[in-house]
Amino acid sequence: MARIVMKFGGTSVKDIGRIKNVALRVKAERDRGNEVAVVVSAMAGATNQLVAWCNEISPLHDPGEYDTVVATGEQVTIGLLAMALQEIGVPARSWCGWQIPVVTDGTHSKARIKTIDTPEMVERMEAGEVAVVAGFQGIGPGNRITTLGRGGSDTSAVAAALKADRCDIYTDVDGVYTTDPRIVPKAKKLDKITYEEMLELASVGAKVLQIRSVEMAMKHRVRVQVLSSLEDKPGTLVCDEDEIVEKELVSGIAYSRDEAKITLVRVPDRPGIAAAIFGPLAEAAINVDMIVQNVSDDGKSTDLTFTVGTADLARARKVVEDAKAVLGYEDLRADSDVVKVSVIGVGMRSHPGIAQKMFHTLASEGINILVISTSEIKISVLIEEKYTELALRALHTAYGLDAA
Amino acid sequence: MARIVMKFGGTSVKDIGRIKNVALRVKAERDRGNEVAVVVSAMAGATNQLVAWCNEISPLHDPGEYDTVVATGEQVTIGLLAMALQEIGVPARSWCGWQIPVVTDGTHSKARIKTIDTPEMVERMEAGEVAVVAGFQGIGPGNRITTLGRGGSDTSAVAAALKADRCDIYTDVDGVYTTDPRIVPKAKKLDKITYEEMLELASVGAKVLQIRSVEMAMKHRVRVQVLSSLEDKPGTLVCDEDEIVEKELVSGIAYSRDEAKITLVRVPDRPGIAAAIFGPLAEAAINVDMIVQNVSDDGKSTDLTFTVGTADLARARKVVEDAKAVLGYEDLRADSDVVKVSVIGVGMRSHPGIAQKMFHTLASEGINILVISTSEIKISVLIEEKYTELALRALHTAYGLDAA
Repeated sequence: MARIVMKFGGTSVKDIGRIKNVALRVKAERDRGNEVAVVVSAMAGATNQLVAWCNEISPLHDPGEYDTVVATGEQVTIGLLAMALQEIGVPARSWCGWQIPVVTDGTHSKARIKTIDTPEMVERMEAGEVAVVAGFQGIGPGNRITTLGRGGSDTSAVAAALKADRCDIYTDVDGVYTTDPRIVPKAKKLDKITYEEMLELASVGAKVLQIRSVEMAMKHRVRVQVLSSLEDKPGTLVCDEDEIVEKELVSGIAYSRDEAKITLVRVPDRPGIAAAIFGPLAEAAINVDMIVQNVSDDGKSTDLTFTVGTADLARARKVVEDAKAVLGYEDLRADSDVVKVSVIGVGMRSHPGIAQKMFHTLASEGINILVISTSEIKISVLIEEKYTELALRALHTAYGLDAA
Repeated sequence: MARIVMKFGGTSVKDIGRIKNVALRVKAERDRGNEVAVVVSAMAGATNQLVAWCNEISPLHDPGEYDTVVATGEQVTIGLLAMALQEIGVPARSWCGWQIPVVTDGTHSKARIKTIDTPEMVERMEAGEVAVVAGFQGIGPGNRITTLGRGGSDTSAVAAALKADRCDIYTDVDGVYTTDPRIVPKAKKLDKITYEEMLELASVGAKVLQIRSVEMAMKHRVRVQVLSSLEDKPGTLVCDEDEIVEKELVSGIAYSRDEAKITLVRVPDRPGIAAAIFGPLAEAAINVDMIVQNVSDDGKSTDLTFTVGTADLARARKVVEDAKAVLGYEDLRADSDVVKVSVIGVGMRSHPGIAQKMFHTLASEGINILVISTSEIKISVLIEEKYTELALRALHTAYGLDAA
């Protein structure tokens, strides 16, 4: 007997018919003699509606109240799925984040899980009851509801799977591809991918798994399978590098449109200026991704460019504008019509020339690179958003990833 | 400085614009120097959608899961209202039932409040923060979410007002009327009404206040005002009999379409038969209202008629049918096309002839009475639903309640 965590996203539970289908898949897993916990998202569209209401009330709303509102989406799904399971004879009960409890820090709207305490839940699972767990949510300091950020249900699933034998993430795609198949029809499905590569893919917007869920899976060596909620066939296994025999030089090409660029023109070039800019942003819990600093002509001031998530642009702008007197920059330019394109592969550690091929390919298509950043297994560039499709297709071909 | 509880129902918070209006009314009350707690329902329509999903999944769904699902409606509203208050400069935070906590028994979907423990909430109110409280919900045994039944937000408001100076219930009507003005245009608004009369009005479906809220207000002598959320004028005060100088013989005429009649034909007439029938119904938490038993011709069996809420009819029928072998009745007849009409007034204690006038008035309109029940200050009859309007208008005139 194995303990399995199954996770279904919003499109898999988007209406009552789909919820009943999920109940059948859970029953099948339980009928194989397994202990099952099932983690679910909100019904597709529900969270968007809730977020829209929050924004309509107040663009700079209290993230604690935001969490109280949006956490209801998952609460609805767990109740309905528990009923659907009971209806087909499977003992089940729902668990909100605060009931388990999933204890998080207090960073509302993007909280991090600190501990998961599940003695009662595990006891009931061992007695044959399916645990239906609300993804995306937890409980923070002061007994307040927290949420883990978009896609947080994946993290909930991996967290629930720390002592499980497998964590199956059911999605509307049938696995992880070399790039987005909607843009590049020749994209190929990968059978296996390393945690490290998946981490880069997730962080640059492949949208299959949330980045924190992969970090957590890597740290605790949880075997995660990404598979289709509609078809019954194997997906992509996210696992240790050792498990993958044939390694490709480049595994995939990812992109993220959820990027916005802020340039501070003529910032005084003095020690501590970077800390003065990025400290307040960090305090406001705004993630800064790429950072580039250029020395300007006079040697006394510098232009500084950084990127944040599109959703954080208004807040980031306000934080930096509020500090204008202290920072002393001349002008602020913001641009959200940009996209980050990344080439990823554990193979590039030992092979030079990967970056050169990327720059050459983009240049030959006439695409200007705005910002570059690199890591051990990734090269990312920021380009104008209108070039997204062209860049992806050209790079996919250049790295030999096109399906036969 | 007074402590005021304000309660707004679903239509008062049905969209973002209305929620912003509620925030302005709350701000006005706070600007008068008062400590304010505001209790809100789900946005109009939200609860119906949630209930519809539960019924679609499973007609005989687990009431514990039902509560988990429907309690989300109020949770959305409190988060949004807290944001709206903050947006206009009023410190506020939301409170779910389990956060306060509002401790209830375990009768899911119609739980009763046992205790309300609010030290932290009161402390924050005293520091100037508006408490935005989710109506309708609490926390029961095993850390499960409970709900108080339809209209339960009124009870939440009164419970929150036990130590408050006033409990203002804002509704889509401007007070309590002698009867439903939509049916009887000559209905009059009452300035004051006793707890006892309001209790009877509520219990027979005047729909202005939930019955338990009135019971609780009466027990703890909470002064409750029913007033319009749209207009700024006094409503109806529900208070002690002593406070009302001029008492009417009959204060109002109420009706309830939410009635269903079950008749058991030829039940053996033996001791304990009533307990055998109503015991299982009570165990299933089904409220039985009127009960009438007739001796039949042979003296060995009897016909027994009782009424339950329309929503409970299917479950009540199943409970009684499951016990058919034990009960030994011949036939079961169910009918939900009935209405209960009630004449209410504390004055009738000392005045005979009130009932006689009711029977006479209905007879002269050709309306047949199916079941009769009476209390000290109320006479109720069950009649065919099609006669509702005719009966109400005739009785309103007969008791001299028509507006000039």
